[in-house]
This record gives sequence, structure tokens and C-alpha cells, in this order.
Amino acid sequence: MAQIAFIGLGNMGGPMALNLIKAGHTLSVFDLNPAALDNAKQGGAKVANSPEEAVREADFVISMLPSSPHVESLYIEKNLFQSIKKGALIADCSTIAPDSARKVAKAANEQGFEMVDAPVSGGVGGAQAGTLTFIVGGSPAAFEKIKPILSAMGKNIFHAGDSGTGQVAKICNNMLLAIHMIGTSEALNLGVNCGIDPKTLSEIMKVSSGRNWSLEVYNPLPGVMENVPASKNYSGGFGVDLMAKDLGLSQEAAISSRTSTPLGSLALSLYRAHSRNGSGKLDFSSILQFLKGSS
Amino acid sequence: MAQIAFIGLGNMGGPMALNLIKAGHTLSVFDLNPAALDNAKQGGAKVANSPEEAVREADFVISMLPSSPHVESLYIEKNLFQSIKKGALIADCSTIAPDSARKVAKAANEQGFEMVDAPVSGGVGGAQAGTLTFIVGGSPAAFEKIKPILSAMGKNIFHAGDSGTGQVAKICNNMLLAIHMIGTSEALNLGVNCGIDPKTLSEIMKVSSGRNWSLEVYNPLPGVMENVPASKNYSGGFGVDLMAKDLGLSQEAAISSRTSTPLGSLALSLYRAHSRNGSGKLDFSSILQFLKGSS
Amino acid sequence: MAQIAFIGLGNMGGPMALNLIKAGHTLSVFDLNPAALDNAKQGGAKVANSPEEAVREADFVISMLPSSPHVESLYIEKNLFQSIKKGALIADCSTIAPDSARKVAKAANEQGFEMVDAPVSGGVGGAQAGTLTFIVGGSPAAFEKIKPILSAMGKNIFHAGDSGTGQVAKICNNMLLAIHMIGTSEALNLGVNCGIDPKTLSEIMKVSSGRNWSLEVYNPLPGVMENVPASKNYSGGFGVDLMAKDLGLSQEAAISSRTSTPLGSLALSLYRAHSRNGSGKLDFSSILQFLKGSS
Amino acid sequence: MAQIAFIGLGNMGGPMALNLIKAGHTLSVFDLNPAALDNAKQGGAKVANSPEEAVREADFVISMLPSSPHVESLYIEKNLFQSIKKGALIADCSTIAPDSARKVAKAANEQGFEMVDAPVSGGVGGAQAGTLTFIVGGSPAAFEKIKPILSAMGKNIFHAGDSGTGQVAKICNNMLLAIHMIGTSEALNLGVNCGIDPKTLSEIMKVSSGRNWSLEVYNPLPGVMENVPASKNYSGGFGVDLMAKDLGLSQEAAISSRTSTPLGSLALSLYRAHSRNGSGKLDFSSILQFLKGSS
Repeated sequence: MAQIAFIGLGNMGGPMALNLIKAGHTLSVFDLNPAALDNAKQGGAKVANSPEEAVREADFVISMLPSSPHVESLYIEKNLFQSIKKGALIADCSTIAPDSARKVAKAANEQGFEMVDAPVSGGVGGAQAGTLTFIVGGSPAAFEKIKPILSAMGKNIFHAGDSGTGQVAKICNNMLLAIHMIGTSEALNLGVNCGIDPKTLSEIMKVSSGRNWSLEVYNPLPGVMENVPASKNYSGGFGVDLMAKDLGLSQEAAISSRTSTPLGSLALSLYRAHSRNGSGKLDFSSILQFLKGSS
Repeated sequence: MAQIAFIGLGNMGGPMALNLIKAGHTLSVFDLNPAALDNAKQGGAKVANSPEEAVREADFVISMLPSSPHVESLYIEKNLFQSIKKGALIADCSTIAPDSARKVAKAANEQGFEMVDAPVSGGVGGAQAGTLTFIVGGSPAAFEKIKPILSAMGKNIFHAGDSGTGQVAKICNNMLLAIHMIGTSEALNLGVNCGIDPKTLSEIMKVSSGRNWSLEVYNPLPGVMENVPASKNYSGGFGVDLMAKDLGLSQEAAISSRTSTPLGSLALSLYRAHSRNGSGKLDFSSILQFLKGSS
Repeated sequence: MAQIAFIGLGNMGGPMALNLIKAGHTLSVFDLNPAALDNAKQGGAKVANSPEEAVREADFVISMLPSSPHVESLYIEKNLFQSIKKGALIADCSTIAPDSARKVAKAANEQGFEMVDAPVSGGVGGAQAGTLTFIVGGSPAAFEKIKPILSAMGKNIFHAGDSGTGQVAKICNNMLLAIHMIGTSEALNLGVNCGIDPKTLSEIMKVSSGRNWSLEVYNPLPGVMENVPASKNYSGGFGVDLMAKDLGLSQEAAISSRTSTPLGSLALSLYRAHSRNGSGKLDFSSILQFLKGSS
Repeated sequence: MAQIAFIGLGNMGGPMALNLIKAGHTLSVFDLNPAALDNAKQGGAKVANSPEEAVREADFVISMLPSSPHVESLYIEKNLFQSIKKGALIADCSTIAPDSARKVAKAANEQGFEMVDAPVSGGVGGAQAGTLTFIVGGSPAAFEKIKPILSAMGKNIFHAGDSGTGQVAKICNNMLLAIHMIGTSEALNLGVNCGIDPKTLSEIMKVSSGRNWSLEVYNPLPGVMENVPASKNYSGGFGVDLMAKDLGLSQEAAISSRTSTPLGSLALSLYRAHSRNGSGKLDFSSILQFLKGSS
């Protein structure tokens, strides 16, 4: 079992850290929020007074932070590397810009450390259940070394390639998810307005070329499928604001790589307008309601 | 075995008629193109000199025509119903506007006939192999009666609901298909431009929430998947112009039903521009090349 | 002064007819709404019991109807031409599909009549004030003949070309108007969110390359400009639903002419969603609120 | 007359510096390109060996660089402020992200300097003729002080507000320009495909509500207007890649300010695809050709 430092105990990081403890690892944790630290302490973690203190004895350093600036600030501006033990492996599980992930990994390498980006999908539910998906960018050796650790928190652990490709795969996947969610919403809404029963339409498209994940497991029209957010007033699930954040990352990547993504960029504008009209906390399948409207 | 009239022996209708003959049915056929008639004659069909002559003895009348005006002209303006035997069942397999399908079915009913819309998917290959998908709009009784006939030409026979819903289901499905094909192209193109291997990215997204039919069986990036149009210079498959035609029908339905379909309408504009730039005959997955460009 | 038949006395047609009477013309009118007929009668019009009766003595027949099917029904299905005096000139002022306008004009020609399409802009206010703009499609001779009649109802009378081009010019203009209205809304909203004063930003763009009609005379942000709908809770002006109708016509024309109009088609989807969310009766500059939201 | 340091002598900066000399100012210049330095020397500038040397004696420091990272590197990473004379006023004329402009201005203030952002429009032609437009963000006092200097290089000098608002106004204006250029292209292309003469359509829309700068002075359809890029094979003018760069800045601002800009984001994707298909160096009005195609 390993000595692990865990920095960032939010809605995702908190339960992830507890799952590492349950798997038998020794954890030293840090967060700015005292309540989050208390919670981890009750779960068996050793609470540190600073990131520097948290990482000092660790063989693995794991961070789970809200955005690129937080990650760059922790590792580069505060130069956390100075406090990390020689030979430790660093994994950042935050969802951030690929360019940012590469910049931090390069800085790590320059100070003699291996670092992987390992963004997750699966949401708070997956974090609690230990069934997250991790997409890892880094060397094959680093991937093999981090895999058993991540396995305590997740079910599927993918190796996407070199540094940054974990982030690339995540933002490409989520952009595609947003697109087929909106597309599925448009198709169902159009069908209903043209007089077809939405359950029948869903069944037909599920076994035809329109088939996609949103249609199969996450139908956005209330009443078509049980136990999905659409049938629970769009509560739970993956929030509109979180989807907008990921779409923002994909658009930043499109701008810097000079890539044309007409549907992806439109998806961001639609989710942003939906959020601005008061739906930022609803599940992202509520985009159907935004298009369908109330009148 | 049944007496069937078949009107419209194009790339799709021709092989469909031959499959009916192979299944043991007696066919009386009509088309404006003499070569198409010759071909059907060699396959065992009785050639008629007019649609009226073709339908006179038939228990089933099947039509397969290019667009709404052709179908309305045949049945309504020329009033083909006058020549059809009492009790015969009419099935139009053309892909046309739902409003148009309903108008023709209503005219049929007023003259005492049952009529179903039964658009197909599966392309010329499916028509030849007898593996088409039929989506049928009409009464349950009519559906049960036409199903064994359609089974000689196709594998999956769906009942979508009342008159017109066959067309509705088809255009909703194909709009959704166009959207996730473009979305998949954007995601793969963005991924490649950001440094991830497209095969790895495809594998990851196929088992993640980005999953969709285009990604699973029709990858648009050359070299990722064997035996798809993308790996054969975008030849074969479902042409850009045909997709643009279906997207035009979905947009007409959106306009008349006052439905907001931002991604669907943008999909049409992108396919139209792609066609206008000389790619109308390529497979529709070539939209990736339109976005990626040559420089 | 002329004998004029006027068919269709709605919000636009009513005041237009009154302006013809004020200019000294003799009017025979028809509408399905008794209140509209009463109003015209009080203004000095002779009320007819049918379109056929209205047109019998007229040298000019003018119609102002809601949509293509109404116009086709009046002239073609009911064959109003049979009741029109030989040598009379027909002008349809409705905003309808160019294809439909051409079809009706062709039917008129076949029965020996000259017919022009003459859609208007300027709204109810312009109809009342007699300051409408007319865009006329038809022969040069017909244009010269109808011009003095239209001048009693409008200020600018343009000749756009042959039959149907009046409609073409109108829907192209209104599509462009919708696009720069949305674009102006996006620019102002982005500017405000990035910390610039919207009046200053408007002044700068008005004398720069961003300049356009929406910015100059119809600023969509409340408080920037006086006496525009945005500063009157988006009341008055040109309604969202009317803009959506015109954008629907432009998209039908784009579909039938195989033209790629990505921004035009997106404009329709945005106005449609805005309407579906309860804003169909607001002025079309309220699209800014749709994007800006309330939170 | 003033002592001015000018850093960045590219296609824009080179002629701008020469105009300052012509106005009687004393210039000390720096660029990494020896040819650019030679050219400035022949024009009467004193050539420095480093930015630090260039600024040492200057009362005004002006920079004209390609992008945000160049500007941040010069002022912040290399801390050019250390070499600047107390009381000197700094003006950065580069087009960069508003966030970046604000960051640099804040760093300047912290070291006791006033700094304005003063991006330009008018292109290389305007730089040579001294007819540029400057949009200045900074304090009223700084604006009054820099205005006479900028007047030697430009005709219109606007004060947009505090630091960063010069950049905000520029990217909002250029986003709106891109939108009405594409919209004008769509309207003209649709009109032509529907049978109206494009000159007639342009004349009508110029005096109607479709009116905008692209239509009035920069018609994108070859042959409609003389002496515009469209009538010179889309040569000269403002390049597709430059427009795409500015649209990228506007999208980065939209992402960071959580603003929904559906047409603006689509404009970027269209210009990007156009560039990727080999047209990056053409004038930006060539987007009409991208939509119209060659077939």
C-alpha cells in the first residue's frame, strides 16, 4: 500500500480520497475548506496544513482542482515540486486545458518528476461509488505505475498517449456528447411536433443509424426513460454549467489548434444561453427544454 | 403469393422489385426509363405501358419515386386511385415530406383505399441484398398486411404510427445521423490537431459517453477503420447530395411545425456548402475533409 | 383616379386600403372578418360579399394575405381570374414564397393578366402613415402602371426585376436584418460582459466597420437609444413571430435553390426557440434578452 | 516634438513608425528583423540593439506586436518597465486579449507607469497613409496625452474607457463585421440563386433595413462594386487568417466572460474551415466563395 498526498477535496476529490483510504492506502490531504478536511480526517486521512506539508512523505501526489489557473498556480507559481520526494509520481485529475496540462508536466519533468494528466468522467456518483473513468496522458511506464492507484477510485483506466492527451480525449469526448445530446433533443422535439410518439421514435432510432449514447441511456425527453434526469425534473446528473465549462475548454483548444468545430462551438453558445436563462444547475439533458420552450 | 404493381424502378426501386419477384410474387411494373423496364422484364416482371395499366390487377401498389412532387403528381393530379382495384393496399416507399405523405394518404382514404408511407434506409446495397429497413406509417391493420410483402425486400420493418410517421421517423433519424457524423468529425479532427492518435481517441470515445453510430461503424477519418467509405476515398455509402436532400426535408418539417433545430439546420448548410464545393457525389462522412481542409 | 379591389383587410391591409381611399381612389373590398369590413366601410369603401364581387369592376386588384396557401387558394384554386376584368392589373402585396409568387403570376399570365408581387416593409406604423416600402417583381410596364397606385400607400417603390423577385428581395433583406440584429446583440452583450459602456461601444461601432442598420436606428440594448422597442420593454416594432415567419420563407427558398445559409438558418432556430420560450409577441430586437438571459 | 520608442516594425508597425518621424518626432526603434530595422533607419529612426536600449530616453513607448504572449513576454517576463524613464507613457497598439491588456496595464501601474491599450483598424494601407483608427483604453488623462501622438498615425482616435476596453471594442466590432460580411454573402448568394440581379438586390438592401458596412463599401460578390477585393480576385484588403485571429480573440473573451455568441462562434468556424481549405491569404470577403462553391 502506498503513501499518497491528495490535494483538493471538493465534491469529486473528497469521495475519491476516501476510496483510496478504503483500499488501504495512507493519505495525507490538503484543501482550503476546513469542512472538507474534517470530513477526510473522519475517513482516516492525515490532515496537512499546506500542500507542501501534504506532499512531503508521499510516493504519489494526486490533485483534483477546479481549473487551469489553480493547477498552474499550485505546481508552477508556488513550485510545489520543491517539496515533493524524489521518485514520487504526480497525477493531476483536474479537467483543464491540454496546453496547461502539458506546461505543468514539462515543468515537472524539468525538476526530475514524472507527471500524468488523468481527468475523470462519471460525476459525483461515480466518485462516491469508485466507478469513475480515468483517461491518462503520460509515458507508458508512468501509466503502468499509476494504474493500480487509480483503480481504487475507478473502473475504466485508459491510456490516451503522451502528456496532455488525457485532457484532449476528455474534451473531445464531452464535446461530442454535448453535440449528440442536443441533436437527440432536436430530433425528439421535431418528431413530437410532427406527430410521432417519442417512445416509438426513440426505439426506432436506437436500432438505426441515429443511435448514440444520449438516446440509449440518457433520453432527454421526460417520460421516455425511467431513472434518467429528464424524468426527475432534470435533477442529478451532469450540470449545464459543468458542460459549458468543458465546452469552453474544447473551444480554447480549437482556437489554439486552428480547428473548425461549427457544431461544437454552437453547442457552447446554446448551453451558455441556457445557463444565462437560469438553468445552470439543471442536468445538461435539459437543453431539450431550452429548445422546446414553455409556450 | 400476391399480385403487386411497382412504380419507379431507379437505383433503389429496380433491385427492390427484383427481390419481390424472387420471393414468388407476380409483378407488374412501370417506369419512364425503358432500360429500367427491360431490366425488370428480364427479371420476370410484366411491363406496363402506364401506371394505370400497371396497377389495374394489383392487390398491392408500391411506389418508389424521387420526391414529394412526383408522388403527389402520380396519385393526386393524375388520380391513379381511379385505376386501382378495390381493396388493394398502397405503399409509398419514397422519402418525402411528412405533410405530403399525409396529403396523399388522405386522398387515398377519401377514395376508399388504405395507404401507408414506408420510407427505407440501407441504400442501394441494402436494396440489392434485400436487407433494407422500412419505417411504416399507417393503421395497425395496414401495417400487418404490408409487413410480409416488405419482408421480401428488407430485414427490419418498424411501425412508427399513423400516416406520415414513417417519414417523420426517417427524417428525424437522418438529421440525428448527420449531426453525430459532423460532431464525430469535429471531435476526431480536434483530437488529431491537439496531438492524440485518432485510433486511440476513437477506442476511448466508443466506450465512453461520446459513443454513437458514426464512431462505431462508420469512422469518418481515413485509416481508422477498414472497409468504410473514409478508407476508400469516400466512395460508396450514402452520398452528400442525398443527405442534403433528407436534411432539406427535415428543415421543411421544422419550419412548418415551428421547431427550433439549430444543429440540424447548420448540418444542412454545411452539407450544402460541401456539395457546392464539388463533393456532392462523395460519401457523407467526407464532411470531415470539408472541415479539415487540405492546407 | 382608379377603381381598385382590395382583398385582405388585416392589420396591414386595413390601413393600406384607407390610404388608397384618401388618395381619391374608389375601393371595393373583401375580408372574412365583418369588423374589418365595417371599418373599411366607415372609411368610404364599398363592401363586397365575396372576392369575386369585389374584383368585378376593378382596374386594379390588390391582395394582402397571411401566407402562400391563402394566395394560391384565392387565385388558383378558386380561380379568381375568371371574375377579373380584362386588362386589369393584379398586385399581391402579401409576403410569400418566391416560388409561390411565380406560380400565381404564371397562372395569371395564362389567363391573360399581368400580375406583380409587391411585398412591403415598414410594419403597421408604415401602413397607417402611408410610408411603406414596396419591392415589386414584374415587367417594367406593369411596374410603371402600378407605381402611382402603390405611391398612395408608400414612400419607396422599388423594381426588383421579374415575377417573384419582389419576394426574393424582401426575404433576402429580412434574413440579413435578422443576422445583423443578432450579431449586434452579441457584440453589445459581449462588450458589456467585458466591461465597456454600451453607449460608447455603440458610438464607436457606428463609425467603424461594424456599422449596420440595427446599430444605427434600432439598438437592441435597453437604454442605449431612445424611442426604440428595446427602451420600451420590447413592445411595438416588428414581432419575433413575424421575423420567424420571414426567416422560414428564406429557408424554404434556400432549400429549394440549394443555397448554403449557415447564419440565416441559425437565425431562424434562435428566433424560433425565443418564441417557444414565450416571447413571440415581443419586438425582434429582444433576441438580445434571449442570449443575455436573466441570471 | 517627442522622444518616442517604437518596438515592433512589421507590416503595420514599420509604416506607423515612419509616420511618427514625418510628423517631426524623434524615434528609437527595435525589432528582431534586421531588414525592418534598416528600413526604419533609412526613414530617420535611431536603431537600438534591444528593447531596453530603445526605451531608455523615451517619453512615449509604443509597441506593435503579433499576439498576447509577445506583449506579456516583453513587458512582464522581461520586465521592460525597469528600463523605462519615470513619467513616460506606454501605449500598446497590438491586437490582443482584453484580459492580457489589463494584466500588462496593471503591471505597468504597479511600477508607477500609465499604460493604454490602443489597437488599430485600417490595415496596411491605413498604416502607410496615416489614416488608421485607434481605439484607446486607459484613463482620460492618459488618453489626452497619447492622442496627439496617435494623430500622426491615424485619423480617428476613440476613447473606449478604462484599460482593456480598447481591445474589447476592437474585437466586438470585428466580430460584428465578420457576421454581417457572412450574412451579406448569404443574402446575395441566395438572391442570385433565386433569380434576382445582385446589383439590384444590393441597391435595394442598401436603402432598407438590411443595410450594413459590408454591403455599402465592401460588396463581397465579384462585379457588383468596383475597387473592392471581390472585384480583384479577393486580393488586398483584410485577410481570412487575420479575421480568424480576431474572431479567436472574441471567442476567448466570450468563454472567459461566459457570453453566448452563437453567430460569432459560427463565424470563426466558417473562417477557419475556409482558411483550412487554402484561402487563408485571400481577403475576408471571399467567404462568399466558400459558401457559393465552384460547382
